[in-house]
Amino acid sequence: MTNQIHTTALQQVADIFDQRVPFHNLLGLEIKRYDTDGVEVVINMKPELVGNIHQNILHGGVTATLLDVVGGLTAFAGLVSSKQDWTIEQLQNRLTTLGTIDLRVDYLRPGRGETFTGTGSVIRAGNRVSVCRMELHNEQGTHIAFGTGTYMVG
Amino acid sequence: MTNQIHTTALQQVADIFDQRVPFHNLLGLEIKRYDTDGVEVVINMKPELVGNIHQNILHGGVTATLLDVVGGLTAFAGLVSSKQDWTIEQLQNRLTTLGTIDLRVDYLRPGRGETFTGTGSVIRAGNRVSVCRMELHNEQGTHIAFGTGTYMVG
Amino acid sequence: MTNQIHTTALQQVADIFDQRVPFHNLLGLEIKRYDTDGVEVVINMKPELVGNIHQNILHGGVTATLLDVVGGLTAFAGLVSSKQDWTIEQLQNRLTTLGTIDLRVDYLRPGRGETFTGTGSVIRAGNRVSVCRMELHNEQGTHIAFGTGTYMVG
Amino acid sequence: MTNQIHTTALQQVADIFDQRVPFHNLLGLEIKRYDTDGVEVVINMKPELVGNIHQNILHGGVTATLLDVVGGLTAFAGLVSSKQDWTIEQLQNRLTTLGTIDLRVDYLRPGRGETFTGTGSVIRAGNRVSVCRMELHNEQGTHIAFGTGTYMVG
Repeated sequence: MTNQIHTTALQQVADIFDQRVPFHNLLGLEIKRYDTDGVEVVINMKPELVGNIHQNILHGGVTATLLDVVGGLTAFAGLVSSKQDWTIEQLQNRLTTLGTIDLRVDYLRPGRGETFTGTGSVIRAGNRVSVCRMELHNEQGTHIAFGTGTYMVG
Repeated sequence: MTNQIHTTALQQVADIFDQRVPFHNLLGLEIKRYDTDGVEVVINMKPELVGNIHQNILHGGVTATLLDVVGGLTAFAGLVSSKQDWTIEQLQNRLTTLGTIDLRVDYLRPGRGETFTGTGSVIRAGNRVSVCRMELHNEQGTHIAFGTGTYMVG
Repeated sequence: MTNQIHTTALQQVADIFDQRVPFHNLLGLEIKRYDTDGVEVVINMKPELVGNIHQNILHGGVTATLLDVVGGLTAFAGLVSSKQDWTIEQLQNRLTTLGTIDLRVDYLRPGRGETFTGTGSVIRAGNRVSVCRMELHNEQGTHIAFGTGTYMVG
Repeated sequence: MTNQIHTTALQQVADIFDQRVPFHNLLGLEIKRYDTDGVEVVINMKPELVGNIHQNILHGGVTATLLDVVGGLTAFAGLVSSKQDWTIEQLQNRLTTLGTIDLRVDYLRPGRGETFTGTGSVIRAGNRVSVCRMELHNEQGTHIAFGTGTYMVG
């Protein structure tokens, strides 16, 4: 059975991250999917995101940004899922404390492609701190980067 | 005594990073100083770089980008300094292989401020791989983030 | 078809790591399996490896050691597999340069159990540098830690 | 003015880490100094700690262990210093939750030497989570490794 508070909370967060974070708008970052089963964050290649004009590849900072956003959303979804009886107010409070403590990015291959999709999973769930692993692939399924991040969730 | 090849090579790299990397232009990233004694990379706050509109703080992805750029430039300067008799062609070849293998960012404090400056130093110098530590401060000297990155330099 | 040079080289490395590294003997670390399909490194719990006597859990330093050994062996196996025509001398030379550049350990759960097994896979393969991800489980399949390591292989 | 509760608490922790952690005894790890100004943890080279018999260097797992112990002690000292009016009971409770969330080790130079000393400092202090940077030097001041660790402190 779907928990309505969970669904509503995650939808609100997706709306904020999709539309009300100026830097996400600058990059064209979009939240394609966000529910308790996972998150899918997408960036479409555009000339302004290029890091190397000779090779036309995504700047590593865009990769890091996308992985960090995925990690934060993944950690928050894990927190939401961990309890049935959250109130919306409690979750809004938790959202204000959401933040990255540390992030590791492993760059595997040059960021070539048209559409870059980030996904993630919680590897350590906690009431205060969660750790997530994230991945970035292009539209052909080429694996471009891994991330590992530690997030404050409360 | 200043080595002219070193100075010329680093100036060329600074010009490329300053003016010919589209994503650096999008962020407004500037190379303030780049010589064998160090690098100073600056980003001025602007509304598009905000990650949290309520608190008006820099997006963590901008922090990661700035630290990664500082780390790459620091690693390359270390390589240039390591040998007296580089030719410009050799250094141009090395520049094409410059890339981040992995990056860790430690977020210490919210990114509040007007001007963010990144600096770095080489902690492990190698002919193929170098490891650097980087720091990000605002214009008041508040320490906002640390970075540690492993770079391919040959 | 099995490549005999590959098999011989990995067997020699397994023998060294199993029997001729004093610190591995101190811990009781054993190489259970080592071929081009993967590595399995095992440590059996014993009182001297405990980090917390009240809870009888493995010291985090043992976890880090086991993950680092797995990562190095995984990186080297990847290098061996990458070429058909290595000579034993070439591989022996490469082995002398094998070393950890950096290692991240994510501690997921307390190290309870009788037998701890580490496994790994290459996520970035290179002729000079490889990056691996490693995992540590106990005999019940409980996932205790993740590792990510960058290794010099040439 | 010295705070007596702080001094007593840190002395108790030093005694535990020095004498009642089996793995520390196995390695010969000693807490040389532990007060609110810092920690100094020492390991003397002995044949059992060697990772490479040809070069007689410290095993990287010993380095990781020492850095992790330093980081945990540094994080705990930071927590103790953060408040004047702890009770011993409160600090004992906090000590039971002390644990490593993640650890990065940067190996800078081969671990040659007779005595290895680890020191650290808090870079992000929190009531729940602290982040520390650690260093390992030999008796000649050669810098052998850096560490960065995120610790649960409450």
